[in-house]
Order: sequence, then C-alpha cells, then structure tokens
Amino acid sequence: MSSASTLPVVEETLTRYRELVLPALVDDRPERGPSYLYDLLPVYPSRPGKGLRAALTLATCAALGGDLHLALNSAVAVELFHNAFLIHDDIQDASEDRRGGPTLHSLYGTAIALNVGNATNLLALQRIRANRAILGGSLAWQVFEETETMLRHSLEGQAIELGWIRDNAVDLVDDDYYRMCLKKTSWYTCIYPARLGLLVARGSTTDLTVLDRFGWYLGAAFQIQDDILNLVGDYGQYGKEIGGDLLEGKRTLMMIRLQRVLTGSDGDRLRSYLGRTRSERSDEEAAWVLLQMREHGCVEAARRSAADLAQAARAEAGQVLAEVGPGPDRDFLLGLPEYVVTRAR
Amino acid sequence: MSSASTLPVVEETLTRYRELVLPALVDDRPERGPSYLYDLLPVYPSRPGKGLRAALTLATCAALGGDLHLALNSAVAVELFHNAFLIHDDIQDASEDRRGGPTLHSLYGTAIALNVGNATNLLALQRIRANRAILGGSLAWQVFEETETMLRHSLEGQAIELGWIRDNAVDLVDDDYYRMCLKKTSWYTCIYPARLGLLVARGSTTDLTVLDRFGWYLGAAFQIQDDILNLVGDYGQYGKEIGGDLLEGKRTLMMIRLQRVLTGSDGDRLRSYLGRTRSERSDEEAAWVLLQMREHGCVEAARRSAADLAQAARAEAGQVLAEVGPGPDRDFLLGLPEYVVTRAR
Repeated sequence: MSSASTLPVVEETLTRYRELVLPALVDDRPERGPSYLYDLLPVYPSRPGKGLRAALTLATCAALGGDLHLALNSAVAVELFHNAFLIHDDIQDASEDRRGGPTLHSLYGTAIALNVGNATNLLALQRIRANRAILGGSLAWQVFEETETMLRHSLEGQAIELGWIRDNAVDLVDDDYYRMCLKKTSWYTCIYPARLGLLVARGSTTDLTVLDRFGWYLGAAFQIQDDILNLVGDYGQYGKEIGGDLLEGKRTLMMIRLQRVLTGSDGDRLRSYLGRTRSERSDEEAAWVLLQMREHGCVEAARRSAADLAQAARAEAGQVLAEVGPGPDRDFLLGLPEYVVTRAR
Repeated sequence: MSSASTLPVVEETLTRYRELVLPALVDDRPERGPSYLYDLLPVYPSRPGKGLRAALTLATCAALGGDLHLALNSAVAVELFHNAFLIHDDIQDASEDRRGGPTLHSLYGTAIALNVGNATNLLALQRIRANRAILGGSLAWQVFEETETMLRHSLEGQAIELGWIRDNAVDLVDDDYYRMCLKKTSWYTCIYPARLGLLVARGSTTDLTVLDRFGWYLGAAFQIQDDILNLVGDYGQYGKEIGGDLLEGKRTLMMIRLQRVLTGSDGDRLRSYLGRTRSERSDEEAAWVLLQMREHGCVEAARRSAADLAQAARAEAGQVLAEVGPGPDRDFLLGLPEYVVTRAR
C-alpha cells in the first residue's frame, strides 16, 4: 500500500473542491418559495461533509486533461444526488443523526423530509439539464443516461439491503454483501462520479469503463469502513449515532461473518435478535452483538477486507493513470483508496 | 355547461387510452432484479384507475392533428410520475387505502415503499429519455424541461400543503387554496399532460401556454371534487378511506370555509381539533367537523365552486379547439370538465 504521505494531498484536494462546489449546494436555489422546501435544502449540505463524490468527478476530469469548469455542473449534480439519497436513506433506516446533527425527518417529520429529498433530486436534474448549454446536446444527453444508470443501480442496491432486513436473511455470504455494495455504494459514490469526469475530459467516444473496477473496489472499501465506523467510531468525527446499524439489523460484512461463526445458544440468541423489529431491540442486546463481533474477530477481518480492496483500487488507478503526468489530481486519485479505509469520518 | 351526453365519450376515451397505456405501466420493467422493487412497481398501476393524465396527453395530441404514437412515451411518463407521486403522498399523509386496496407502505413498510416510489420516478425518466430516438434531440430536451417545471411546481404545492398542516394554519382564504391547487394538482394532472400533447402535435415552436388556463381550472375543479369525495364519497367507488383528509387536518376549501364561519365555542373546538396530531384526533371529533361542514353549507359551496371552474375550463377548451374538426378526442377534451366534477371515483 502507498505510504502515509498521500493522505495530506487527499485532504487538500477534498478541501479545494469542496470550496468550489459548496456555494452551489448551499446557495443555488430559488429565492422565493414555500416554507419547508427551499429553506431546508441546505441543511445537510451545509453540515461538515467530505465532498468526496464531487471531488472524484473534478479530479478525474482534471487529471485526464479536461477543463474543470465544464465538469462543475456534473460535480454539483453528483453531490446533490448524494444529499437526496442521505435524506431518504435516513427516513428508511429511521436514523437519528447525520453529519453531527439530528436527521431531517427527526427535525421536520417524514412528510416534509421526503419532499425535501425529492426537491434535492430535482435540483440535481436541473444541473444535468444545464449541461446542455455547456457540453452540447449530445454529451449532455450522455450524462443524463449515465445518471439514469446510476439511479437504477442505487435503487436496486437499496432494495436488496432493505429486503434482507425485511426477510431477516440468515444465509448470506460475503459475495452477497459485495454485490449489494457494488450497486448501493460503488455506483453512485465512485463509478458514476469517475465516469462523468472521464466523459467531460475525453468526450463521448471514450471508453467509459476504464475506471469501473477502480470505482467498484473503492466504493466497497468505503462502505466497509463506513460500517466499521458505525460500530466502533467516534461520534464527534463520524457524526452518526454509533451502533445505529446494529439496532437496525443491517447485514454488514461483520454481521454476515458473525452469523456464520456463532453456533449453539449464541447463534440462537443472534437469530432471535435479528428476528425482532428495530424498536424491539435493546441497547444491551446490541452491545452483546458488538462484543461477539469483536471476540470473533469480525471487525478485524472486515478491516483486512477493506485494506485488500483499497490496494486493488490503487492498482487499478495506477494502471489507468500510468500515462498521466504528475500533479495533485493524479495524486488524489492514487491516494483516495488509502484515505477511505483510514478515515475517521 | 354541456349536456350530460358528453360523459359517455369521456368514459370511452379514458378506457381506450387506458388500454393503450396500461401494458407499458404494468409490464415494462426489468425482468430480473431484487425483490421488493420491480415486483412492487405494478401494484398501484394495476389497481382500477382512471388514467386521466395519459388520456389528456394523447387526446390533446390527437385532437390537434398529432401522431398518437409519438406521444405514447410522454403519456406513459405522465402516468408513472403520477403513480410515484401517489406512493410518496400516501406515506406523507399516512393514508391507509388507495384505489380500493391497502397503501403500499401499509403493505411493505415506509422504507420499501419510498424506494418503489423513487423507482417509479426513474421509470418515468427512462421514458423521457426514450423520447430522444422518437422525437429527436431538440424536442426531447423540451419535454425534459417541461418535466422539470412540472416536478418543481408539484413539490412546491406539496410543501405548501404540508406546511399548512405543520404550522396549523388558521387564516387561509380561498385564494390560498387555489394557488396551492395550481401547483399541487393542476400542473401535473392537467397542464403538463396537455403541454406534452401540444408539443408533440405542433412541434417546439408552438405557443405552449394556450392550454394552461384550461389545465389550471380543470385541475382545481378536479381537486375540489376529490376533496368532496374524500368527505362524502362511497368507498367502493372512491377507493380511499372516507374522511382521511379530516383526520389529517387537510386544508380543503371546505375546511378553510368552515374555519371562517365557525365562531365562539365551536370555533374553539375546531381550532383545538386542528391543533392536535393525526393520531390524537378521534373519529368522533372528525364526524363532528363533517357535520359542521354540512350544516354550514361548506360542501355545497365547494360543489358550486367546482362547477364554476369546470365551466371556465370548458370555455377555455372551446376557444382553443374552435378550429379543430369534430371527433372523439375533441369531444373528450370538451367533456372532461363536466366529468371531473360529476365523477364518483
């Protein structure tokens, strides 16, 4: 794996691109309109976030010699889709906290939050539409098509995960998790942003798939680290309630492994825990599940899997960027795998 | 107002276009995919519905001399957006029944229903995208832009109505209701479908606004009749729980008028009723509110307002269609205002 010295450039690049994109996320909305709609659009974007997805679009475009400003609409759209996804996801998971504050539906109720999520998706679509004047009809339409593909994968990934909880899935294997991850996380967090950067930099005839494996591995590593932080992270940095996934019965890599290794009465106890609804699960039982995960090395095993994926992502990026000259955008893409598995937030 | 003899042609046209559009709504989805996503897409579309919005697009296109088949994608999209809106709206209103069966979130939970609503929106977007091959890039972009405008109005209308309930609005006037209606109902139910039919029939240089007032009046008449059916309709035909709006505290024209006329202790009682949350409102109190509405002539006054709007819509349609030759599509558009205010479902 690369040395620790790649991390500062990743942080710097995230900050630089976040400053470029944030004004659009926070200010670019109709001035007049009903309460409980436009006023609430900046709530999540203005809380501390990494801006990883927009940075991935912009850095990919810049590293491949594209004009950053032509990719800005797409980068903003990527980040808006992400924020919409967070609002809906928080409703779906009944989450309490997001980015260090109460979730939108905890503050304003499910009805209003659902509507704000839809409006955030609409703002993203408006950015996709605005591409036409900047990129021309043909390339802009291709970005629209990429957007649909991404949305389809994300919705399917979300459906897979919700189905596991609803059906109380007991016989999942690691590969099930990775397939779910590819759809739920990798597509919208990594593959789609990278493809848009590539498309803007290289035009509509370029091979859009060259960064797909990089994005897949990176997204899976990102998600595993996210699941680990949800279990054992520091709330001050992570910004979500620690252990929320446990109470939700989420099938993380750790949970799938624990289901496999726990036998006898401990296995029965876990099955009984997972067979209940979220409100029927106690904090004490959740703490017991976490203890079992630790004792059976599930967290450490997941860390190793994430590190392996990060290494594979780094190798993919190295291949694609072999011909690319040095610079912070190239360094960012090469350092990102290490960053996602060592991040505390 | 037109004679009662226009109603059969409206019913026939609805049936004819519903048969054209329904297969696309029910069958046109990926064959393979996760449970709790594609399997649930046909749930609402396959229940008995009017198909009013798709018929409006197709009849407008055909009446104005356009090729019906060029408008089919748009008509299907219109209906899919409607179904997505219903799924989300049912979650937002905590509704129990829809089209004669339990709401999707009652059957599968909020998380899965929210996701299916999003997937239904995505299928609609895919139809908008498919337009490019049929209509060409320029016209297809214009349909996309119309779609965004419609979505914006709908979300704003929804936000206005949710805000009234959240803030327990006590000083609304009829005009507030009509403005909300324009955004929440008229745009997506009438103006948008008619504009798409117009666009496909007459091309991108046509004046898209000529049917706007027709659509506004028609949509408002439609919504008032919907609110009346929710109060005093027959469940067997209407398909939603009767009185749901009352329990929800919805600011219908009847409620706004009742708030204006009730004084003294009755006024206090209504304010106290509206000041509670849905779960704190009893069926007995809701029945008392309905009785007050009846005694103060609020329902009859709303019926008259709807009839006036229908007449205005009919006059608008007559003007736009003055040069159009006779035929069932012209008759459908002219008869629709009467239909929407006399319908029982």
